[in-house]
Amino acid sequence: MEPIEWLDGKVKIIDQSCLPHRQVQLEFDRCEEVAQAIKTLRIRGAPLIGIAGAYGLALCAQNIAAVTRTEFLAELQRIAGVLASARPTAVNLTWAINRMLAAAQTKGDISSIRSALIAEAKAIHREEKEATRRLSRFGAELINDGFTVMTHCNAGALATGGYGTALGVIRAAREQGKNISVIATETRPLLQGARLTAWELMQEGIPVTLITDSMAGHFMSRQAVNCVITGADRIAANGDTANKIGTYSLAVLAKENKVPFYIAAPLSTVDRSVASGDGIPIEERNPEEVTHIQGIAVAAPGVRAANPAFDVTPHRYLSAIITELGIVRPPFRQNISTLFKTRLARSKGGASGRSQDRSHRGQRSLPDRRPE
Amino acid sequence: MEPIEWLDGKVKIIDQSCLPHRQVQLEFDRCEEVAQAIKTLRIRGAPLIGIAGAYGLALCAQNIAAVTRTEFLAELQRIAGVLASARPTAVNLTWAINRMLAAAQTKGDISSIRSALIAEAKAIHREEKEATRRLSRFGAELINDGFTVMTHCNAGALATGGYGTALGVIRAAREQGKNISVIATETRPLLQGARLTAWELMQEGIPVTLITDSMAGHFMSRQAVNCVITGADRIAANGDTANKIGTYSLAVLAKENKVPFYIAAPLSTVDRSVASGDGIPIEERNPEEVTHIQGIAVAAPGVRAANPAFDVTPHRYLSAIITELGIVRPPFRQNISTLFKTRLARSKGGASGRSQDRSHRGQRSLPDRRPE
Repeated sequence: MEPIEWLDGKVKIIDQSCLPHRQVQLEFDRCEEVAQAIKTLRIRGAPLIGIAGAYGLALCAQNIAAVTRTEFLAELQRIAGVLASARPTAVNLTWAINRMLAAAQTKGDISSIRSALIAEAKAIHREEKEATRRLSRFGAELINDGFTVMTHCNAGALATGGYGTALGVIRAAREQGKNISVIATETRPLLQGARLTAWELMQEGIPVTLITDSMAGHFMSRQAVNCVITGADRIAANGDTANKIGTYSLAVLAKENKVPFYIAAPLSTVDRSVASGDGIPIEERNPEEVTHIQGIAVAAPGVRAANPAFDVTPHRYLSAIITELGIVRPPFRQNISTLFKTRLARSKGGASGRSQDRSHRGQRSLPDRRPE
Repeated sequence: MEPIEWLDGKVKIIDQSCLPHRQVQLEFDRCEEVAQAIKTLRIRGAPLIGIAGAYGLALCAQNIAAVTRTEFLAELQRIAGVLASARPTAVNLTWAINRMLAAAQTKGDISSIRSALIAEAKAIHREEKEATRRLSRFGAELINDGFTVMTHCNAGALATGGYGTALGVIRAAREQGKNISVIATETRPLLQGARLTAWELMQEGIPVTLITDSMAGHFMSRQAVNCVITGADRIAANGDTANKIGTYSLAVLAKENKVPFYIAAPLSTVDRSVASGDGIPIEERNPEEVTHIQGIAVAAPGVRAANPAFDVTPHRYLSAIITELGIVRPPFRQNISTLFKTRLARSKGGASGRSQDRSHRGQRSLPDRRPE
């Protein structure tokens, strides 16, 4: 079952808020429904909400009643703004929406725009899926046979519309025949680790041990962890990384215990318009997510609670960022910049995605190499 | 309402597992009931389980049917062993039980032993309560007006049979007229921070913000925390400290962010028979405490979970240990040793608790001074 699908002019998703206890599929034919599903975390994971945003705009284009191209594009732009505000931290949503708006601009009439938007959303979905497969193969080179890998939140197939980022790396290492165990943090408040990561790994037959977030340091200090891998919601130009709240703590604990700390994310997560983590907005969610668990009050009634959904890990805590173009190591600002130049040079050279993939196989740290 | 009371030959406790939603008092007349209440965390907090253990032995002494003193003491010893095993990490339980057994040895007949045990349990209760008041006054000197203090788990009145250790310090600072705010970590798996600490502070009118454990690093990195104070379950001779799981992570994050990290604990928590944290046993509890919250499954069904209830914070992460004899700073091994020598010298000098208290007022770092 795919976490998201475009089927007969509708978007079908797995409602991740019901997992693992119930498997519920939802079908949307309006963009507002997609935005609401993103807000309420029925659809979640930075790459997946990018894909969902793209399909959302494709849906909305089918319903816009404008007569002229200008009116049509204005309305598309307005709805894009609403959709983009559904979750402010993950940049993939804005990235996908901008790609969609650019695709719309290339067409001369409303009917062509509608078709182009469906095609572009499908392309984004396909490319993001392929990007996670590629980055997973690069990342797997960092994982030795017998490793215990700690991960946080859920950066699996559910989060990415395909193969997974952090869990994709683990999956790819396993496909290479390595024995891998995983320690999954439960990831309060919304327990994506307990509900989703543990479930995905169990389905794959990969041994997983669930812990509370507070136990991570203990296991690192007891040398029970060989590396930590998480996904990302936005990576600034200097490598500072916003990800699920708690990631920063894990990165500090990893550094203190000399455990390598990796971020796995497609390039759609890199926002070079933001110089450092200071520029990344942190979404503050409803405090009831902290005071209640699955609708049940778990705290003193009436207590004030804070609920920042993300934190920023300064780049100095990262050992490497795993992308679909290779593994980026410090100095991150320079190597991220080189990576994008490499990609630009390649796309100008007209290389197809497939041949690019072959050319990268086994290549560990692309940004250190000269653009081809 | 006192968390524990001795009344007409029975032990009355507040069932902390029901708080804050229901206030339930339980009454025990058998030692086994006390042991069970300790195991299931109806009674919890290192100083409080010491007091409860003492009352438990006083109860059991009333019921032992032995005819000779030798038989009586043998049975008392056997039950003491069972009681001591209820929770292995907090040393206060063993400490109190040993004090009780020593008190029993001083009496020549069964009836006198029974009376002596009740008197000794009451003395332990009174002294521990007084110790927390004294250490709280010392600790309050570390807290400036306007401070935001982070704390973990519950080291309040509920945990200590009186005034609190970490929360006692906060309470004492407040009584000095300082404006103090608290950030309380919820403390998964059993949510003592969300349920108990938030509740105690709200009752006292001290502003408190609840966060998940994973948010602690984020708030420290944003300079929102002036210091961290927690209680302790066992302090080794070198200052290494076992406390609720997650304490180690907070200490590392505090060090990384240059936030002072304090342990507040009575001397009954110091176990000088253990050279370092490596010698402290870590209780592993039922994994269902992780996979379920208040009886409701929150994780993928059948997932394996780990549940160490404590971790060890190496002494190098501690800024100071706050005790009833003053504030201990590094080097901890030497200063803890001096502290106990000071106490011994004083008790030989026959100084009363009250006069000791006066002599210590305003004295910030006793171990650095010569014994009087």
